[in-house]
Amino acid sequence: MAASTNSFLVGNQTQIPSFKPKPTSQSFLHLTKPPFTSTRPKPVSIRCASTTTTTIGSDPRVINFAAGPAALPENVLLKAQSELYNWRGSGMSVMEMSHRGKEFLSIIQKAESDLRNLLAIPSDYSVLFLQGGATTQFASLPLNLCASSSDPADYVVTGSWGDKAFKEAQKYCNPSVVWSGKSEKYTKVPSFDGFEQNPHAKYLHICANETIHGVEFKDYPVPKNPNGVLIADMSSNFCSKPVDVSKFGVIYAGAQKNVGPSGVTIVIIRKDLIGKAREVTPVMLDYKIHDENSSLYNTPPCFGIYMCGLVFDDLLAQGGLEEVERKNQRKAKILYDAIDESGGFFRCPVEKSVRSLMNVPFTLERAELEGEFIKEAAKEKMVQLKGHRSVGGMRASIYNAMPLAGVEKLVAFMKEFQARHA
Amino acid sequence: MAASTNSFLVGNQTQIPSFKPKPTSQSFLHLTKPPFTSTRPKPVSIRCASTTTTTIGSDPRVINFAAGPAALPENVLLKAQSELYNWRGSGMSVMEMSHRGKEFLSIIQKAESDLRNLLAIPSDYSVLFLQGGATTQFASLPLNLCASSSDPADYVVTGSWGDKAFKEAQKYCNPSVVWSGKSEKYTKVPSFDGFEQNPHAKYLHICANETIHGVEFKDYPVPKNPNGVLIADMSSNFCSKPVDVSKFGVIYAGAQKNVGPSGVTIVIIRKDLIGKAREVTPVMLDYKIHDENSSLYNTPPCFGIYMCGLVFDDLLAQGGLEEVERKNQRKAKILYDAIDESGGFFRCPVEKSVRSLMNVPFTLERAELEGEFIKEAAKEKMVQLKGHRSVGGMRASIYNAMPLAGVEKLVAFMKEFQARHA
Repeated sequence: MAASTNSFLVGNQTQIPSFKPKPTSQSFLHLTKPPFTSTRPKPVSIRCASTTTTTIGSDPRVINFAAGPAALPENVLLKAQSELYNWRGSGMSVMEMSHRGKEFLSIIQKAESDLRNLLAIPSDYSVLFLQGGATTQFASLPLNLCASSSDPADYVVTGSWGDKAFKEAQKYCNPSVVWSGKSEKYTKVPSFDGFEQNPHAKYLHICANETIHGVEFKDYPVPKNPNGVLIADMSSNFCSKPVDVSKFGVIYAGAQKNVGPSGVTIVIIRKDLIGKAREVTPVMLDYKIHDENSSLYNTPPCFGIYMCGLVFDDLLAQGGLEEVERKNQRKAKILYDAIDESGGFFRCPVEKSVRSLMNVPFTLERAELEGEFIKEAAKEKMVQLKGHRSVGGMRASIYNAMPLAGVEKLVAFMKEFQARHA
Repeated sequence: MAASTNSFLVGNQTQIPSFKPKPTSQSFLHLTKPPFTSTRPKPVSIRCASTTTTTIGSDPRVINFAAGPAALPENVLLKAQSELYNWRGSGMSVMEMSHRGKEFLSIIQKAESDLRNLLAIPSDYSVLFLQGGATTQFASLPLNLCASSSDPADYVVTGSWGDKAFKEAQKYCNPSVVWSGKSEKYTKVPSFDGFEQNPHAKYLHICANETIHGVEFKDYPVPKNPNGVLIADMSSNFCSKPVDVSKFGVIYAGAQKNVGPSGVTIVIIRKDLIGKAREVTPVMLDYKIHDENSSLYNTPPCFGIYMCGLVFDDLLAQGGLEEVERKNQRKAKILYDAIDESGGFFRCPVEKSVRSLMNVPFTLERAELEGEFIKEAAKEKMVQLKGHRSVGGMRASIYNAMPLAGVEKLVAFMKEFQARHA
C-alpha cells in the first residue's frame, strides 16, 4: 500500500488510516501544511502494517477487577502484541506455528522450565499443559486415581468450586464431603482436626482458593490414608505465592486468573500417580497420554501456552513467588483494612484468618447503595466489581497483575464514597 | 514514557524504540533536522505502546505450508495485533475480558452469527465453541449419541484420523469399520454402494478430509438407518467450501487449520441429538451443558474464539465460501498439475477424484532428493513441507489463508528443482 495515502501523524500517537482524524489536530495540519516553510516538503508518512482502525496503546486502560479471565501484566501484553505478527523473526505468528516445530517446542519447553523454577517443582512431578479448564479435571481426577466406582475419596468443600468438584466425582468414584462451609455461607476453612477423613480415601481434595467466596487455605491438611494424596484446585491462586509442591499429589489450575488467558489448564502431578486411568477414561482425560507426549498428544492451545510462558518469565523477573506474595499481601492488606476500618459501612463476611489474597468479596451496610457504588466506580474506570450472581455484593479480584496503584485507587474511592454517604 | 525519548521515524515504518535505527535513514534525519526551515519545529514523535524490540509488519513472513496450526490471513493477524493491548477502546485485551461481560458476549455472538451465515446453518442446529480438539469429540460423540455400550455405529476409515475416531469409540459403543483404505495406504474414498452399513447404526462417521493422507470426500454418503445420522470430522477442510449442513447430524472441527488458532473446537449439532448423554459422560463432554449455556458453562477459550470471529468476518468479506472454494480449487489445480505434468519426477499417490484441496502429499521419484528439496525450499522461505512422520515424502497444506502467490512460488521452485535434477 502506498504509504503517503494511508498514513498520517496525529499528536504523538501512531494513527492507522481508517481512524478519523481530529480536524483540529495541530500536528496533523502541521505535517500536511507546514506553516513554517514556503517550499512544500514531501508529506511525512508512516506505513503501519495494520489497515484496521486502532491507535496502538493510546486509549486509557481500565482497572480490571474481573475474577477471571482477568487482568494480565501490561508488559506481557505489549510483548505479545509486538510479537503477534512475526514471532522473533520466525516469519510467523505463534498462532501459525506447527506444535511440533522447533519454534513452538522452544516456547513450551521454556514455559515448563520457568514454571518449575517458580514453584521449585520436584523432578518426580510432571507438568502438563491441557485444555478444558478445572471442570475437566473434576472428572479426570477420579478417572485416573480411583480404580473403581466404589473407591472412596474425601472432599473438603469451602465454596462453589469444591462443591462442583465433589458432584462431578460422584460419577466415577465414591466421594464424601468430609466438611462443608455451606451452612455458614462459605466463610470459613475448617481446622484440620475438625473433620473426619476416610482412612481408605484415595485422595483428599481441596479448593485452595474459592474465587466466588474469597476463602483461601493458608496451610494444607495431610491425608489420613498414608497411601492417599492431597489434591488442590489452585485455579485462582496459582503462582500467587510459594507452595511446597511435595505436599500434593496433584495441583491443577485454569490459567485465566494469574498466569495467562483462558483455554490452558496446568496440571502438576506426581509421576507415580500417572498410568492408572480406568479403561472408560476418554483419551484426552488420561494423564499418561499427555505425560508420554509432553502435552503434545494432540494440538495443544499453543498461543495460550505462549502467553503463560511470558507471564512466568515476568514473575521470575519480579523476583519469584516470594516477592510476588509480598506484593499480593500488601495489596490485600490495604483493601481489607479499608473495609475493616469503615465502621461497618463496608463489610467482608470471610473469617479474617482465611481471607483470600486474590478475591475480596465485600458488601455495603446499606445494600441499596451497591448499584451506585459499582456504577460510580466504573465511571472512574474501575470495572468488574460486581459480586458473583450467586452471592451478590461486590468482589474485587486483585490477582498478580493488579498493580498496587489499582488497589489504592479503589480504596481512595471507597473512602470518598463512604464520606459522601455517611 | 516521554514520547520524544522513545520514538522516531525510520523510512516508512513505525519503529519501536529499542529497534536499532538505520543511521542513514533520510526521513529520520528529515524529521529531527528539517532542512527546509530555519525555525526549528518541535521534534515529531510517535508514541508506541510497546517497549520491546520489533518492527510491526516489517520482517519478511515465511510461506507456511504447515498442516495445522497453520497460516492465518495476514489482515486478520494485523487486526488482532492492533487490538491486542486494548480491544476497541474497551481499555482491556480480549484476553482480560470476563467471558460473561458485554464485550466478550458481543464477540462470541458475532462469531456464531457470521459462521451461521457462512455455512447457512439451519436454525435447528446449535453451534458450540468447545475445547479439547477433535480428539475429545471422538469420545463425546458415542457418549452423547449411543444409549449403551452395545449400540452400533459405523465408521468409514479413509485415513489416520478416522481410525483414531473409531478406536476411541470402542470404549463407549459397538463401532464397526464398514470400509477401510488402509490396505491401499489411504489413497481412496469408497463408492457409497461399495460398503455395507449396519441398518441399526446410530450414526455413520467419516473424516471429510484426511490431513495426513490428503484424501477428501467430494460428496457424502447417506446413513442406511433412517434414524441414524451422518457425522463428519471436518477439522482440516472446515469453511474451505460450502457444505449442506442439513445432510449431517454433527459436524465438528478443530479450528487450527482454516479458521483460527489451536484450542478451539467447533461443533455444529442438530438440536434433537442434544440431551441424551449417558450418566458417565464428563460434564465437559455433554453437549446439553454447553448448548444450554451458549458455550459459557465454564470459561471458554475466549481469545481463540475471538480469532475465529475475525477469520469468519474475513471469509464473508471475501465473498463467502463459494468464492473461497473457487480460490482453493485454483490453488490446488496448479499444484496437482505441476505434479502430474512432471513426468513422474513428482508423484501424488492419491486417487485423482478424491484429492484434497487442503493437503497435498507428494513424493519424489528419486526419494534421496527429498531432503534436499525440503532444505532448499526452506532457504526460499517455504517451510513445513515435510510429510507427516507416518507417511514420509512431502506435504503442502494450502488452507484458505495460503495465498495463490505462495502456491505459485512453490510450483516455480518445483520446476526449477526438477530442471536441475533431470
